[in-house]
Amino acid sequence: MNDHDYMQLALELAEKGRGWTSPNPMVGAVVVKDGQIVGRGYHQRVGGPHAEVNAIDDAGEKARGATIYVTLEPCNHFGRTPPCTQKIIDAGIRRVVVAMVDPNPDVQGGGNATLEAHGIDVTTGVCEKEARTLNEGFITWVTTGRPFVIAKCAATMDGRIATRTGDSRWVTGPSARHLVHRIRHGVDGIMVGVETVRKDDPSLTTRLEGENGSDPTRIILDTQLSMPPSAKMLRQDSNASIWVICGPDAPPDRRAVLEHAGARVITAPLKDDRIDLDALMTLLGRMEITSLLIEGGGTVLGAAFSAGVVDKICFFYAPKILGGDDGVPICRGNGPASMQQSLLVHDLSVSQIDTDVLLQGYLKPR
Amino acid sequence: MNDHDYMQLALELAEKGRGWTSPNPMVGAVVVKDGQIVGRGYHQRVGGPHAEVNAIDDAGEKARGATIYVTLEPCNHFGRTPPCTQKIIDAGIRRVVVAMVDPNPDVQGGGNATLEAHGIDVTTGVCEKEARTLNEGFITWVTTGRPFVIAKCAATMDGRIATRTGDSRWVTGPSARHLVHRIRHGVDGIMVGVETVRKDDPSLTTRLEGENGSDPTRIILDTQLSMPPSAKMLRQDSNASIWVICGPDAPPDRRAVLEHAGARVITAPLKDDRIDLDALMTLLGRMEITSLLIEGGGTVLGAAFSAGVVDKICFFYAPKILGGDDGVPICRGNGPASMQQSLLVHDLSVSQIDTDVLLQGYLKPR
Repeated sequence: MNDHDYMQLALELAEKGRGWTSPNPMVGAVVVKDGQIVGRGYHQRVGGPHAEVNAIDDAGEKARGATIYVTLEPCNHFGRTPPCTQKIIDAGIRRVVVAMVDPNPDVQGGGNATLEAHGIDVTTGVCEKEARTLNEGFITWVTTGRPFVIAKCAATMDGRIATRTGDSRWVTGPSARHLVHRIRHGVDGIMVGVETVRKDDPSLTTRLEGENGSDPTRIILDTQLSMPPSAKMLRQDSNASIWVICGPDAPPDRRAVLEHAGARVITAPLKDDRIDLDALMTLLGRMEITSLLIEGGGTVLGAAFSAGVVDKICFFYAPKILGGDDGVPICRGNGPASMQQSLLVHDLSVSQIDTDVLLQGYLKPR
Repeated sequence: MNDHDYMQLALELAEKGRGWTSPNPMVGAVVVKDGQIVGRGYHQRVGGPHAEVNAIDDAGEKARGATIYVTLEPCNHFGRTPPCTQKIIDAGIRRVVVAMVDPNPDVQGGGNATLEAHGIDVTTGVCEKEARTLNEGFITWVTTGRPFVIAKCAATMDGRIATRTGDSRWVTGPSARHLVHRIRHGVDGIMVGVETVRKDDPSLTTRLEGENGSDPTRIILDTQLSMPPSAKMLRQDSNASIWVICGPDAPPDRRAVLEHAGARVITAPLKDDRIDLDALMTLLGRMEITSLLIEGGGTVLGAAFSAGVVDKICFFYAPKILGGDDGVPICRGNGPASMQQSLLVHDLSVSQIDTDVLLQGYLKPR
């Protein structure tokens, strides 16, 4: 096993924290001495010990003279916990291998520099690309103050997410739908338009078979607060909040009704009579929504693309043709006149999920 | 090398005939003696010698006592050429390995039975699946009398084949567009609606870089014969015919104008005021169109799916999002009310063509 292999293990450990660490990043660590793995750890949930602490505690006395592999530069400041650099120094670690430096513009380089000042050998950049992908949500949030936005849809091969009657049960198969619940588990917020609430009455919770899932904050775009207080998500049991985003002129009585039903009503600026999604992303970022999944419908997806707020797309295509143009399209709204004005998708990756196909890619440079 | 390996070679040889053999199938043959390949041949073009004849002639005297691998059961009847079974018997071939039996319901088993009656060892079914895919067009035509119909589109990831102004240059990249010309080369006919002629004024010829391509018969759906006689395809140089399909009530003066411009005008029955595509396929099959590529636009694709005439889809998706619902959709027309009524795509395969994605699949059982 070499540096790369140990870092892969650390990345796998980090992944176990997905859904539970926000607004912290996922971090994993492995302690290796004389070619033996003597300690493993990961950041299990926000407020809990950091990965390095868990791995060093797991190694115990064997940490002395060892190498620690950690997927993110160790922190050097007192936050919710004492600095990990101190823990590493105190444990007598001789070498630190880091996948990526801290992306936080305020602390960059701090941890590594402190370790080196204490005579510890530091190597950086091992499996950096994987580490950046792992925490793409956190990195976006910490560098821009806005959530990492994923646009998801499940469409037929001719680009319809529902029939003309609104029927969408189901477009994709069970494995693809399960994967969507995995994605929900990993994000802080999930956003739909009030039309989707009225038509599908979804719960928007995370349902993973035989496994505990983290429910994202449910965020409903509802300019005029027309959401029915009888909506399923307001009646169901979940620790996750429901935020209803309205415009400044939403009727106050509707606000009272929805608040009484358990929702938090948040006023956002409008643009062309709709919620200004660009401004909303800044607002959500301040509210510690580091990652946001937009699940539709077509109007919200179209508006999100047109506002330029989408970072990543996850488009599922089912092996079926609906035919006709009266079904619900992936996007609604006004498109550009020229094909050259379309948004380019970078780093497109293709996967087959049973009989469905998932295309994933990025809309912004990474 | 074993039977499978030699048959793969024969399949590769057969493939070289693509675009030139219709209405015959593509066939390849390899003669092997004492573990050495002593002869190769394929059916190069309709009217020319069959693959077995070319391979045996290539082997010369070495064919005596040898094994021949042939991708399709040797013919046993006088057609354009004498029967291949006689050639094989006369050459002293000891063993014949066949990928698939002749799909023609009239001659099934004839060739193999004759060979066996002459004491030749016959093995059938080696690489049968590949051989069936190679000649999927021919097999459909010979068993149903109708062309094998491929529906092609090039769309953005949100399912638009052009912008609201009709701009579609280009949706996909050069490699994907080149592949479309390869597909054109391999089919007997290419079909579009008159709207596409009016908007894009396409030539619909096969353009392969540094290689001779076979132009398919251009088939234009034009119920009322509104096609302009100034259309580019009527002015350009190509050996391929242009067939304009109209309804029984098309104006006779328009017919004369188009015929004068070089088109062949063919009357077909209507259904709901449009060309009855189901009836048209039977008509085209009788005219020896064994395979047909439908390139759109959305109205024709929608009608083809709804008429149930499509055998295979080739959908290219470009890594871009157009946004909005005012662009041209993949299909136009009326779709079903329920998602369960959508057409199912079988045997979906996924390929990445540079930065584009190609999804191919079948709509009918194979």
